[in-house]
Amino acid sequence: MILTLAGGVGGSKFVKGLASSKHKEDVTVVINTGDDFERFGLYISPDIDINLYTLAGLIHEQGWGFKDETYNTQNVFKNLYDQDCWFNLGDKDLATHIYRTHLLRQRISLTEITKELCEKLGISLKILPMSNDRIASYIHTPEGRFHFQEYLIQRRMSDQVLKIEYHGAANASPSPGVLEKIAEANIILFAPSNPLVSIGPILSLPVIKDAIKKSKARVVAVSPIVNGGVIKGPADRMMRDMNIEVSPAGIVDYYEGLLDGIVIDFQDEQYFSELKNRGLEVLVTNTIMDSDEKKESLANQVVEFADHIKAKALKQNI
Amino acid sequence: MILTLAGGVGGSKFVKGLASSKHKEDVTVVINTGDDFERFGLYISPDIDINLYTLAGLIHEQGWGFKDETYNTQNVFKNLYDQDCWFNLGDKDLATHIYRTHLLRQRISLTEITKELCEKLGISLKILPMSNDRIASYIHTPEGRFHFQEYLIQRRMSDQVLKIEYHGAANASPSPGVLEKIAEANIILFAPSNPLVSIGPILSLPVIKDAIKKSKARVVAVSPIVNGGVIKGPADRMMRDMNIEVSPAGIVDYYEGLLDGIVIDFQDEQYFSELKNRGLEVLVTNTIMDSDEKKESLANQVVEFADHIKAKALKQNI
Repeated sequence: MILTLAGGVGGSKFVKGLASSKHKEDVTVVINTGDDFERFGLYISPDIDINLYTLAGLIHEQGWGFKDETYNTQNVFKNLYDQDCWFNLGDKDLATHIYRTHLLRQRISLTEITKELCEKLGISLKILPMSNDRIASYIHTPEGRFHFQEYLIQRRMSDQVLKIEYHGAANASPSPGVLEKIAEANIILFAPSNPLVSIGPILSLPVIKDAIKKSKARVVAVSPIVNGGVIKGPADRMMRDMNIEVSPAGIVDYYEGLLDGIVIDFQDEQYFSELKNRGLEVLVTNTIMDSDEKKESLANQVVEFADHIKAKALKQNI
Repeated sequence: MILTLAGGVGGSKFVKGLASSKHKEDVTVVINTGDDFERFGLYISPDIDINLYTLAGLIHEQGWGFKDETYNTQNVFKNLYDQDCWFNLGDKDLATHIYRTHLLRQRISLTEITKELCEKLGISLKILPMSNDRIASYIHTPEGRFHFQEYLIQRRMSDQVLKIEYHGAANASPSPGVLEKIAEANIILFAPSNPLVSIGPILSLPVIKDAIKKSKARVVAVSPIVNGGVIKGPADRMMRDMNIEVSPAGIVDYYEGLLDGIVIDFQDEQYFSELKNRGLEVLVTNTIMDSDEKKESLANQVVEFADHIKAKALKQNI
C-alpha cells in the first residue's frame, strides 16, 4: 500500500505518474484542502480540482483549470455586475464548483463528493481530501493576514511571508480512511508539492502527523526544489521568507523527523553526501516531469526506491 | 402613478414599451416570482431575469436568456457529471443566478437584489418582485403535481391542468413598496402575461388582491389572448384545461371584479360589444409587439386609455 500526500500543480504531475505506474492499484492520494475557499458563494477546492482534471486528461497546459476553457460567466460578473474576479472562474470549471457546492449544501461530505467526481471522470486512483473540516492556510505578512489564494493570485506573491497559519487544523479530523490508509501503508510519499502550503497543511492535522511518525512505512519526499528554485509556484520565495534553505536540504529540515529518504534532481547531486550524512537514503534522478513518460518513470523509480529502503531496513533488523 | 403587474416573455415586451413610453418616470412594475425555483442550488427567478435582460437590451430573440449565449458550464454538467439539464443554464445567465444566490444567502432580499441588478444593468424603471417570500406555482395534473417550470419545460406542457396551486402565497407578504405603490397608483395595468401563472400568482397574495380591489386606480388588462391563442407560452391550453374561455372574454372572467377596462387586439374586435355590455371600457388596437416601436406605442395607448377611463369616471361623479 502506497500513500501519497499531494497539493496542486507539482503534486498532480507526480500523482498522474503514479496513476499510470506499475503500482497504480496500490496508491491512495491524500490531497491538501488548505487552499479551499469560497467565491460568490461557491466552494472551490483548487488542489482537488487540479488533480482530478489532470488525472482525467482535462487539465489546461497552464497547470490548472480546464483545457479549451471559456470565461463567459466571469465576463458578465466583471463587465455587468462590476465584480472583482481576481480568481479566474472558467465556465467549465464552474460546473465543478456549482456541483460540489450543491452537494456540500446537502451535507454530502467532501470525501464522498470527491469519490463521486472521480467516478464521473473515470478516475480509478483513490483520492481523499485531507479533511472534511474547513481548514484554511493563511499567510501572515507585514500587510496583514491573507488566505493563501489571495496571497498567491490577488497579491501576486508580493508580500513577505512572516508566518503560515493552518486555521482550523488543530481541531480538524482527517477524512474517513486517511488514518486507516496511513496505518496500512508500506510506503508514504510526499509529492513534489510546496512543503509550506500543500504538504504542510496535511501534516498540520496533529493526528495525521502523529500517525505518519508512528507508521511502519518508509517515508520518502520528492524534492520540489530543483537547482535553487521551483518549477512553478511560490515555494522558493516562501521558504526564503521563512528562513528555510531553498534546497533539498531545506526540504529535509522542514520535514524533520518524518523522512527515511528523499528524491532529488540530477541538478542537485551536490546535496547527496550531506543528505546521506543526515541518515537519509537518497535517490538522484530526473525529477522534471515535462512529459507523461517522465511522470510515470519518476513515479516508478520513487516507489522502487522506497521499496529498496524498506528491504534494506528489514535486512538491518534481522 | 402607474403600477403594472407582469410575468415573463409577453409581459416583458409590454414592460419594455412602458420603459420607453412618455410615462416611464411614473411606472412601477411588480413581477411574478411564482416561477422561481432552484437548480443545482442556484436560485433562479425566470420572470425577473426576462424583464431585466429585456430592459437592458441583452435578451435573446427567443424571449429568454442572454443573446450570444454559450452553454459550456451546462455541457460539463451533462457530459461529465451526467446531470439532467432540462432547464437551460447559459454561461452568461449563470452569472445572474450565482450572483443572486450569493446575495440571498447573505440574507439580502430579492427586492434589494433586484434593485441592485437594475442599477448594474442601467435600468431606471422601478422593478419590484411580488414578494420576498418563497411562492411556487404548482400545476396539478393527472400525473401528479409539478412546479410550473417542470410542467412548462421538462414535461413540455403535455399534461392536463387540473388545478393551479400558489404554494406559500396565502401567508406571504408582498415586497416592501408593493402595497404603497398600489395605494399611490392612479392606473393599475395587467400586462399581456399568462393570467394563470404570471398575473395569477401576484393576485394570489390576498393583501395584494384586496389592495387592488380597494384601490381608487383604474384597472386595465391587456389581453394576452389574441385570435383564440397566445403569441408564446401555455396560457391558451392551460385556460382550456381550466374551462376558461380562450378569448378576451375569458380573460375578463378570470380577472372578475378587478377590471375597469380591457385592451384587445384588432383581431378580437368581435368581443367589443360583449365586453362593453359587461360594463367594461374597451380599447381595440394592435397588441402584437413585434418591434420596439409597437411596444412603445401600445404602452402609450394603454396608459392614455386608462387615463381616459379615469376622466370619464370623474365626470360621471360630478
